[in-house]
Amino acid sequence: MKQGKFITLEGIDGAGKSTQLAWIAELLQRAGKRVVVSREPGGTALGEQLRALLLDKSITMHAETETLLMFAARREHLDKVILPALAQDQWVLSDRFTDASFAYQSGGRGLNSAKLDILEQWVQGTLQPDLTLYFDVPADVGQQRVSRGGVVDRFEQEQADFFLRVRAAYLDRAQRFSDRIKIIDSNRSLPEVKAAVEQVLQSLLHHE
Amino acid sequence: MKQGKFITLEGIDGAGKSTQLAWIAELLQRAGKRVVVSREPGGTALGEQLRALLLDKSITMHAETETLLMFAARREHLDKVILPALAQDQWVLSDRFTDASFAYQSGGRGLNSAKLDILEQWVQGTLQPDLTLYFDVPADVGQQRVSRGGVVDRFEQEQADFFLRVRAAYLDRAQRFSDRIKIIDSNRSLPEVKAAVEQVLQSLLHHE
Repeated sequence: MKQGKFITLEGIDGAGKSTQLAWIAELLQRAGKRVVVSREPGGTALGEQLRALLLDKSITMHAETETLLMFAARREHLDKVILPALAQDQWVLSDRFTDASFAYQSGGRGLNSAKLDILEQWVQGTLQPDLTLYFDVPADVGQQRVSRGGVVDRFEQEQADFFLRVRAAYLDRAQRFSDRIKIIDSNRSLPEVKAAVEQVLQSLLHHE
Repeated sequence: MKQGKFITLEGIDGAGKSTQLAWIAELLQRAGKRVVVSREPGGTALGEQLRALLLDKSITMHAETETLLMFAARREHLDKVILPALAQDQWVLSDRFTDASFAYQSGGRGLNSAKLDILEQWVQGTLQPDLTLYFDVPADVGQQRVSRGGVVDRFEQEQADFFLRVRAAYLDRAQRFSDRIKIIDSNRSLPEVKAAVEQVLQSLLHHE
């Protein structure tokens, strides 16, 4: 049976993922795909409740607790949304997935990436996205964009060096998994970014 | 530096753990110990919020999601309560710990126990309770006691065969770790149960 494709969008806060997500969904729909749009942490009723806890600035938690909660929300997301959609030949577009755990919890919080490898294997086995678009901006550009948005969450309130580490972890991962992860320079005008994204997506659509 | 001891109470719902917990704390205090009483899932502000999600009958979740949430609450419990207390020579008395995950999520829900082993190692490394009191009652006795209590939670609402499997997993674990886990026959009068518990505790206190 034909399976849909799983596309994830990654990047530091302020990289512009959310802006891209809506028109990427449209582009895929125009190409005749049924598209499910989702996000992490979240994507399910329980996942959204966990997201609220994870982003709540009034809550402090150990980096490993944070990591386990991210993967708990992910397990549910896979079970309730991602896997059923793919099995029905729908395309899943998720704002963040496991690369974000490597970037934020390992890069940002300093957790040993071997511990992330273990949870990745525990939760998703060999499943990986078919394509990951990593929207790259310098950490200070991302932070400026976020602060213009007003209220910041538990992650967005972190200091500059945190986002430098998150970005470095993303770039490192993009290099390691260059077949899957495409780096989109997001520090350009919107039309330029869109053109770069469209090129990657057309390539995926034509190689189906 | 002197370390406190870590004691966990285990058993199926209705086994009488909670009834025992209060006077066990008293017995230890009379023996001159500073005692911290806690529970799982829970024990921290975040853990109690996770407990509310885990026990909520209106929420359905995958058995692996449930397991990851249990271990997330546990990681926080270790970080904020258990480890700091032990380091300050306090005794920690917890209503449930990791044996419950093996009993409920592996025995009850059918998750492969190897997956539990991985999370146990991930979250607690080599840390184990100094003593575990497993309060054993036949599954139907536990269920009768619970149903007399009125409103049941997401676990307590399970069917008879679920509790048969949970109890079997507890007994199996008690046999495998017989040095640490002491089986207390809890299908007796309260004075008889207390006498059995007291004997085990006095032995721990005298072998310090």
